[in-house]
Amino acid sequence: MKFQELLSESARAMRFSAIRRMSAVIERPGIISFAPGQPSPETFPVADFDRILKRAVAEEAAGAFQYILTRGYTPLLEAVADYARHKGMDSHPAERMLTEGSQQGLDLVSRVLIDPGDVVLCEAPSYVGALSAFRAARARMVSVQLDEQGLDLEDLRRQYRACRDAGHRVKFLYVVPNYQNPSGITHTLERRAGLLEVAHELDLLVVEDDPYGDVYFDQPPPPTLRSLDHDGRVLYLSSFSKILAPALRTAFVLGPETLLAKLEIAKQAADLCGSGLSHRVVLACLREGLIDAQKERIRPYYRDKCKAMLDALAREMPEGVSWTHPTGGLFVWLRLPEGRDAEALLEAAVAEGVAYVPGSPFFAEDDTGLNTMRLTFAREDVPKIEEGVRRLARAIRA
Amino acid sequence: MKFQELLSESARAMRFSAIRRMSAVIERPGIISFAPGQPSPETFPVADFDRILKRAVAEEAAGAFQYILTRGYTPLLEAVADYARHKGMDSHPAERMLTEGSQQGLDLVSRVLIDPGDVVLCEAPSYVGALSAFRAARARMVSVQLDEQGLDLEDLRRQYRACRDAGHRVKFLYVVPNYQNPSGITHTLERRAGLLEVAHELDLLVVEDDPYGDVYFDQPPPPTLRSLDHDGRVLYLSSFSKILAPALRTAFVLGPETLLAKLEIAKQAADLCGSGLSHRVVLACLREGLIDAQKERIRPYYRDKCKAMLDALAREMPEGVSWTHPTGGLFVWLRLPEGRDAEALLEAAVAEGVAYVPGSPFFAEDDTGLNTMRLTFAREDVPKIEEGVRRLARAIRA
Repeated sequence: MKFQELLSESARAMRFSAIRRMSAVIERPGIISFAPGQPSPETFPVADFDRILKRAVAEEAAGAFQYILTRGYTPLLEAVADYARHKGMDSHPAERMLTEGSQQGLDLVSRVLIDPGDVVLCEAPSYVGALSAFRAARARMVSVQLDEQGLDLEDLRRQYRACRDAGHRVKFLYVVPNYQNPSGITHTLERRAGLLEVAHELDLLVVEDDPYGDVYFDQPPPPTLRSLDHDGRVLYLSSFSKILAPALRTAFVLGPETLLAKLEIAKQAADLCGSGLSHRVVLACLREGLIDAQKERIRPYYRDKCKAMLDALAREMPEGVSWTHPTGGLFVWLRLPEGRDAEALLEAAVAEGVAYVPGSPFFAEDDTGLNTMRLTFAREDVPKIEEGVRRLARAIRA
Repeated sequence: MKFQELLSESARAMRFSAIRRMSAVIERPGIISFAPGQPSPETFPVADFDRILKRAVAEEAAGAFQYILTRGYTPLLEAVADYARHKGMDSHPAERMLTEGSQQGLDLVSRVLIDPGDVVLCEAPSYVGALSAFRAARARMVSVQLDEQGLDLEDLRRQYRACRDAGHRVKFLYVVPNYQNPSGITHTLERRAGLLEVAHELDLLVVEDDPYGDVYFDQPPPPTLRSLDHDGRVLYLSSFSKILAPALRTAFVLGPETLLAKLEIAKQAADLCGSGLSHRVVLACLREGLIDAQKERIRPYYRDKCKAMLDALAREMPEGVSWTHPTGGLFVWLRLPEGRDAEALLEAAVAEGVAYVPGSPFFAEDDTGLNTMRLTFAREDVPKIEEGVRRLARAIRA
């Protein structure tokens, strides 16, 4: 059969991600890797999970293994409502749903809002998984400039108007205001307020993705956009993958009831429901205060590793190289002098024994951000972070 | 904000399922329910899960809670290959992927193959979850007649030609050959061979969905279409939800490499990956031979309950009512005399204290199968099955 001829337009446009293509190069023994987009397994509360799993199975027996409602296990939905309320976000039951990781939330949002050719406004750079979901829905992705304070609000207005003047429908603005993957940037309170003003002015839906909000080093981040918003125009996504563990695949969406009703139907078609067992584990973690315990535990862990990376960058990097100064999350974003190509440099870096992710795939537009790269301090210990930065500096200087 | 105006075409067409709308009516205390589309929790091997979870956490610790590859945990993919090989289906690594329940497989297949208006040929009746996934991709669904031997092959040719003559692109034929949900029908070996001949003749991709193949009462079902096919034109989906438990959310797809490559990218955009913990549990179940143990255990359990239902139907039902005679699975399909309306009857049945699912939502076309209903024998015990059928007969006679 000629399977190519059967493919949908969306499938024809699908490509393996550049990051994936690189992973074969990156995963060599002995390499110091700043590449993975994963929390460190050293932060996972495994002994707690062991105890909680044991208890869930003992107490609920077969009930823990049955299908659940599409929106998720009701007691967990209620516990998530409390968790969100502590971040200043009230919600009615009709405004919440659990998803299989935030990625599923992004995918369902895309399917419920995007027709081919519709515009999604994204940060430059933006989270590559979100770009994949928007691309699968055949969105037209348009970048808005990002600086160390947050979104460039003049550029937001400019890009919105350019889209509208070109006759395109702008469906929403997608932002990761806390410790963004890949840049590590956090929007200031002032920029958050400004963003909401512009969103009001342009009558723009805002999709706020917040997987890293609990992973701060010293002070919590500024309030979420959803908690600052008085218009009901923010759809908020968050996840327990970074503060508990990814394998629980448990995340949530808070948003306008009209959209949540559609997201629920879309989720039913997508996978019927999540895992009642995972939802019970996350529920026990919330009830036991494990999120707060994890914040205490994770804070010095990532703070020290981030500091080691920033200090090493300051010591080792040649003139003309700049980087962000995250106060939480897992990532530092590095900018080579204009004209340098981080993808081309990767081979030399791997030869030196260090890996990273070139920044270009994090931009909505092709051939953008060629001189940028994402570094994570999550995986390696402090001595390896220091040695890895030395190797990277050697590769850049060569 | 006017959220309605932001919705995609797909979202505008989304409706809560008729089944869901009915569930409020159905779930009253004291009611005997033949409605749910779920395996009985009494069949779940909870003690084994408890032991296996304990061991997985002890042996793999944090590793069991990290992100995994999009295609799934590699050792489980290999074990699934062995499991499929025992059913006569060989596969290369590039031909397999794990999904979050078969529903996700159906959804990804839809996204990778269907553009709005493309035709999917379905059995009449067909699995309602598959119809939801096809609808979300805005497929044109066309029914092919089903009888107790399987698909009506002349009708398959006829429907295909009618679509082609109307200028529509037929993307695939969707079938559930074993103990279909909702009809309980199993395609005979002869019809399977005939179906593959017609598929060859029409150069038609076949999507074979097999969640119930292990849930047989006496003899295993005939070989799968994929094992009988010599053309490489069958994409096969199966799941461990019915033979182990739904909360593991673990299912798999075997199919042509070209399609699997696209399914993998689509899954990455849909949810990044499944749960490494669940995959480890299913792996241990396969390695320990728990599937075979479960087959032994489940066989008499459902066989006796199905027999009780069929015997009660024969005793109680008035003239003009007919039903299928399943040899596995969870469902019996009942047909009222022409002109009767099973949805209208539901209120009277609930007043008698029995619930079922009206058959109409299982048809691709509106206002079809109004005189049909799906009954499951999975939930209730034998005395309640007998009493429930008596109540149902009273409601039908009234």
